[in-house]
Amino acid sequence: MSHQQSDEQYVVGVDYGTLSGRAVVVRVSDGAELGTGVHDYPHAVLEASLPADLAGSARPLAPEWALQVPEDYREVLRVAVPAAVAAAGIDPAQVVGIATDFTACTMVPTLGDGTPLNEVDGLADRPHAYVKLWKHHAAQEQADRINELARTRVESWLPRYGGLISSEWEFAKGLQLFEEDRDVYDRMEHWVEAADWIVWQLCGHYVRNACTAGYKGIRQDGAYPSSDFLGELAEGFGSFVVDKLEHPIGELGDRAGALSAEAATWTGLPEGIAVAVGNVDAHVTAPAAQAVGAGQMVAIMGTSTCHVMNADVLREVPGMCGVVDGGIVSGLWGYEAGQSGVGDIFGWFTRTSVPAAYTETAASAGESVHQHLTRLAAAQEVGEHGLVALDWHSGNRSVLVDHELSGLVVGQTLATRPEDIYRALLEATAFGTRVIVETFRDSGVPVEEFIVAGGLAQNALLMQIYADVTRLPLSIIDSEQGPALGSAIHAAVAAGAYPDVPTAAKQMGKVRRHVFMPDEARAHAYDALFEQYVALHDHFGRSTTTMRRLKAIRREAVARRRSRAQT
Amino acid sequence: MSHQQSDEQYVVGVDYGTLSGRAVVVRVSDGAELGTGVHDYPHAVLEASLPADLAGSARPLAPEWALQVPEDYREVLRVAVPAAVAAAGIDPAQVVGIATDFTACTMVPTLGDGTPLNEVDGLADRPHAYVKLWKHHAAQEQADRINELARTRVESWLPRYGGLISSEWEFAKGLQLFEEDRDVYDRMEHWVEAADWIVWQLCGHYVRNACTAGYKGIRQDGAYPSSDFLGELAEGFGSFVVDKLEHPIGELGDRAGALSAEAATWTGLPEGIAVAVGNVDAHVTAPAAQAVGAGQMVAIMGTSTCHVMNADVLREVPGMCGVVDGGIVSGLWGYEAGQSGVGDIFGWFTRTSVPAAYTETAASAGESVHQHLTRLAAAQEVGEHGLVALDWHSGNRSVLVDHELSGLVVGQTLATRPEDIYRALLEATAFGTRVIVETFRDSGVPVEEFIVAGGLAQNALLMQIYADVTRLPLSIIDSEQGPALGSAIHAAVAAGAYPDVPTAAKQMGKVRRHVFMPDEARAHAYDALFEQYVALHDHFGRSTTTMRRLKAIRREAVARRRSRAQT
Repeated sequence: MSHQQSDEQYVVGVDYGTLSGRAVVVRVSDGAELGTGVHDYPHAVLEASLPADLAGSARPLAPEWALQVPEDYREVLRVAVPAAVAAAGIDPAQVVGIATDFTACTMVPTLGDGTPLNEVDGLADRPHAYVKLWKHHAAQEQADRINELARTRVESWLPRYGGLISSEWEFAKGLQLFEEDRDVYDRMEHWVEAADWIVWQLCGHYVRNACTAGYKGIRQDGAYPSSDFLGELAEGFGSFVVDKLEHPIGELGDRAGALSAEAATWTGLPEGIAVAVGNVDAHVTAPAAQAVGAGQMVAIMGTSTCHVMNADVLREVPGMCGVVDGGIVSGLWGYEAGQSGVGDIFGWFTRTSVPAAYTETAASAGESVHQHLTRLAAAQEVGEHGLVALDWHSGNRSVLVDHELSGLVVGQTLATRPEDIYRALLEATAFGTRVIVETFRDSGVPVEEFIVAGGLAQNALLMQIYADVTRLPLSIIDSEQGPALGSAIHAAVAAGAYPDVPTAAKQMGKVRRHVFMPDEARAHAYDALFEQYVALHDHFGRSTTTMRRLKAIRREAVARRRSRAQT
Repeated sequence: MSHQQSDEQYVVGVDYGTLSGRAVVVRVSDGAELGTGVHDYPHAVLEASLPADLAGSARPLAPEWALQVPEDYREVLRVAVPAAVAAAGIDPAQVVGIATDFTACTMVPTLGDGTPLNEVDGLADRPHAYVKLWKHHAAQEQADRINELARTRVESWLPRYGGLISSEWEFAKGLQLFEEDRDVYDRMEHWVEAADWIVWQLCGHYVRNACTAGYKGIRQDGAYPSSDFLGELAEGFGSFVVDKLEHPIGELGDRAGALSAEAATWTGLPEGIAVAVGNVDAHVTAPAAQAVGAGQMVAIMGTSTCHVMNADVLREVPGMCGVVDGGIVSGLWGYEAGQSGVGDIFGWFTRTSVPAAYTETAASAGESVHQHLTRLAAAQEVGEHGLVALDWHSGNRSVLVDHELSGLVVGQTLATRPEDIYRALLEATAFGTRVIVETFRDSGVPVEEFIVAGGLAQNALLMQIYADVTRLPLSIIDSEQGPALGSAIHAAVAAGAYPDVPTAAKQMGKVRRHVFMPDEARAHAYDALFEQYVALHDHFGRSTTTMRRLKAIRREAVARRRSRAQT
């Protein structure tokens, strides 16, 4: 037990991702990561149907739905946390705090005591009783109406979100629930961010974090959209904020409460230690990468990408996800942008679109399909594949904020190979990032450095493409579990080990600076492709309704097939 | 030898396709197909490099090139024709004629005696000395200049080709040869359609057929583009027609000459029998399907699709391939349109974009990958995949006439499966056909019936999609070798067994009428997708330069990689 010293203090950070929860034990003095535990959610993401083991039968879900099961989150506390402590080889008695971060906007409908509605007798077969995961994209119609009405009424909060509220967020998802299952809506006492629900499970009471309340809950200058606005949106919806949403706010890094006896039993940690206010996986990563200064854009690149950046000025940036006072670090304006699909798209492509010859060659070379395609793609000159793609397979989060958009590849010929399309998809996500970076810059919030966290940082070709396409120096977080480390930093602050998050970040965060630098010749070649990307972006995102029509046609066809199957 | 009767006459039709030549022995009295022989071209299509066995080394070819080797064509006469006669079990002495059809525009540069230049000492390593196959698409720049100058000068022949000359045709390919290898151009004495070159091999002298001279050689009202026009196109090119192209014309169904002693030895057929004037695989199929009347559109659907239709009126149809007096049947106006990529696109997709799980399931079910994807795709409602594609992977032949265009798929999400894209590609080709059918109709040349020949007629899902999308009754040729049967019909006329092609077609042609009828509910659902197809078609085909820019970017990148490899 070489890590163990009798006077050391430790904290636990738990990162709740899309498919699993990951706990890490971190030394308070220097941020050393001593042990990790991971637990895959048994029900993963519910996209095709409800789970038969809970709902009685595999009731089908409509397209664009994405649900989760809250009990899967509790199981992470019971499995991954003890595993991390055991792997670290420390005495749990020396753990002084725990903090969590979560995907967002992921929403749990609960009773007054925090019981998720899918656990309530008689509701387990109701889709709306389950957790709506961030990538539940079935509330676009509601988002459209929110946006239209807010524009008409010139609501002051709208520009804080770049002019568009996302279908992923609290109000659109809440309005969908209100309109599609009024019974479940009426029984719901709180509409809770999963980021706060898990803290509630840990310390026994509900604290609403400033980050998601601001970014996902339209809380600006201390207020939510008015009941007048909400009532005009839908009759009976006027009291949504008062009845379901409003709750005392906790600042990031604050102590939400003490670890309850029950949660102490689950985790094996000491009862009464500090539990930090909930946080979001992306935002919590900025201090983990020592990137809490102005102009330092942190991109958490995994299945999707979140971009977070602090600034001391308030600017309204078109199409960004939001700007929130204290949204990343208490006392600064936190900016957020995002791309709904990144690693997800690469994963989808390797699963569905790569022939046996490639998977076999990769296997015999001891490579993953990703590695194999990356190696082949890396041998190309910029533009050699003759392709450009739009990275909207999961819609567009910034700057168009439209989840009715979809993916596109143009330029295919009979000579086009899998590695060509793969590279075009990598590049498309880089172009999507460049659109975001340029939009920030043009709005008076310049980006000076691009710091990458998340699993995709391991792909050197992808990183070089991002440096070349954005012409920014790329730094890489020096931790494989950025969000969990970021949570641990917040746990240390909540426990009183550091006065504030920036001070803790300086001691505990880790980054390798300027690992990838832009190459001007390649950057120049990418300019020509980017010009075409922008043309496609503006055409499909702003000028035509093709993608929206295709989604509508698909929904009508699925409904037709289902009604046919029932007769 | 049950087929054999001492008083029966037989003919041989030989169909030269993209990858193989196919000979069929046909009974003159009723068109019965008695025996077949097939021979794959040993060098197939040269797209990446010259063949080392002929050129000394595998000299690389630039993107968009597609060459062939003339000796491969002769070998079909030596192998496939005797094989067909043997399979038929007839006495070769009872064969009264032979006729051939060929891909077009496929061009052979020759000496005065017909020797292909790649067979001339010292020229075997020169790409321009080889046959330029129809799908050689590297002369778009030349086509663009021909079109621009013709528009400027208001050349009278331009509207006969829908306003656009294709890069696939005799003048664009000839100008490319002139500009890129002047030495080879100067040594060339004839620029010969392969359709005529093979007849030259059979009967020992050169007859230029009216069909390709009209459709591919810009021969209208007995004249070619003027030397004045050609000289303005490029200095020194003014004498192209006089020096390389002009030659006495033979009408379709005419006798070009008598089978030479040498060709009799190759084929095992009697010396002196009738050899018909050369013809094109698509055009020759119309009589094989008994479809020589006005409004009967014959679609020969294989790697690409050719549409041919007769009419007794001359109309100028925008973007069609051409209208030629006697281009299909002597005495009628023959209209031609086409789609550059059809089965090619489906084949490319199944080869490059279908994962192992699908190919394994298909194999264990005893299905081809095509059959497997078709079965999965057939279970869907129209529009359920949420996709629309453009079928321009090999460019667009009608009505845009632009081989700088490329393929596109829009609407992809992370739920998109291979069978979804496969179906979208099938539908895209049907939409491409509908654009052609509507363009003809809008120009006063209505299409009343759609008759399908070629290998794709076997795919019932594809055929039903075409019926539904076009709202036309679909008939299917009742022969698996439509072009070869069509050639046999021409051989019978050339031999004097029938007075003309329509009379012979009535006796020897075969068709199953109205096998697939449009379903109005599906047709209505397709209207919504077609609306999006047309929007994409017009945007990418007429409004933006995205696809052209991508091809240019690709060419620049390939050149950069090559120059880097050389240093």
